[in-house]
Amino acid sequence: MKLYVIGLGPGDPAQITPKAMAAIAQSDVIAGYTVYIALINQWIENKKILSTPMKQEIDRCRMAIEEAVKGKTVSMVCSGDAGVYGMAGLIYELSAAYPPIEIEVIPGVTAACSGAAVLGAPLMHDFAVISLSDLLTPWTRIEERLHSAARADFVICLYNPSSKKRSDYLEKACRIIMEHQSPNTVCGYVKHIGREGQTSMILSLKELATAQTDMFTTVYIGNSQTKVVEGKMVTPRGYRT
Amino acid sequence: MKLYVIGLGPGDPAQITPKAMAAIAQSDVIAGYTVYIALINQWIENKKILSTPMKQEIDRCRMAIEEAVKGKTVSMVCSGDAGVYGMAGLIYELSAAYPPIEIEVIPGVTAACSGAAVLGAPLMHDFAVISLSDLLTPWTRIEERLHSAARADFVICLYNPSSKKRSDYLEKACRIIMEHQSPNTVCGYVKHIGREGQTSMILSLKELATAQTDMFTTVYIGNSQTKVVEGKMVTPRGYRT
Repeated sequence: MKLYVIGLGPGDPAQITPKAMAAIAQSDVIAGYTVYIALINQWIENKKILSTPMKQEIDRCRMAIEEAVKGKTVSMVCSGDAGVYGMAGLIYELSAAYPPIEIEVIPGVTAACSGAAVLGAPLMHDFAVISLSDLLTPWTRIEERLHSAARADFVICLYNPSSKKRSDYLEKACRIIMEHQSPNTVCGYVKHIGREGQTSMILSLKELATAQTDMFTTVYIGNSQTKVVEGKMVTPRGYRT
Repeated sequence: MKLYVIGLGPGDPAQITPKAMAAIAQSDVIAGYTVYIALINQWIENKKILSTPMKQEIDRCRMAIEEAVKGKTVSMVCSGDAGVYGMAGLIYELSAAYPPIEIEVIPGVTAACSGAAVLGAPLMHDFAVISLSDLLTPWTRIEERLHSAARADFVICLYNPSSKKRSDYLEKACRIIMEHQSPNTVCGYVKHIGREGQTSMILSLKELATAQTDMFTTVYIGNSQTKVVEGKMVTPRGYRT
């Protein structure tokens, strides 16, 4: 009957909004990737759990939609915000093939924002969010976006900077950005934002090119004005101060 | 002693994170723009309030820092996320001139995400966030960013699309984007997200050019793949499906 698509934020339960918690509490069924379900384990006893491993997003969404069609209240949970590389779009696209259900997206704190808060204030001016995953997007398109964003002096936030199969993608991205920005551009990254083992680092673009990152890392490349202030990565609000 | 810079989310109290609420509860002093202070009025009785009107951000930040230097626990509250066109960067920059204080940024749900949830799922793929305010950024730089983002097929989210003095800026932006994207590109906007009087609209890029927006409107311009699904604005996850 009703399907909530919920962003849980960075992972720390104190950063899940009351609106998201209320929707979860009302739900009969909770769907999501195993790791995200684990984050809210203590609040979902006695609920039906539809948990599927990574990369089975389409199956997971169909299962959730089918439960809602059957009359259940369902929460599909995502990390960060459900609308930024999350499940919101896929739910809408797939639901068109089923009898109508009510869908509500409940936004959360996306990694761009939660990671930025750890580093300081890197996103204070115009920014571009780019995923380096080429599973669904041609790499040439990703390269074009990196060139465009760096040339126009956007702060750049990278999701999915690398994985085992794509171990050199972050380096390739940094080399592209260095065609337009100084190798000394202030950059940063945060691993496991809001979770156990959170680590962060502020470094130059040249150093970032050889940094070790993974799928759970969010990367920030400053604009030409970004600086280090008292150990934090800070982008000024504009070009006139 | 400690200064929290807090993102309150879209304005609906149910979208303020427990972490933000806990910091506010612990604080002796609450600083912020009058409208944002009003959002949390019920939780800040018996606290000192430092409220300043719009455009006095620098004074507001200095007052908050000075209270923290005096040993108080202070919360500087912003709407949305404190790190996206909020006060986080200014607080870091200005605090460098004072004796050291502890600063913590507590992220919130930024308008890009909360507005997206109202429209459907417009930000499901790479996106660029651009403010059309030229108070601190030369308009030529803003134009360059609009060209770059549209040419590289980013979804574009516009903050501050217009004001009384800049009543034709959104139209100018749409004309620039139409040099690279179809006039039929799916667009949307949301006014007063999460507050009384919230309204939203899905329309074409050509129609958006003459739409009436204000400083409290967040605007979304789809990429070449964005479509309307069951009345919602939805960007697919990629180019291969």
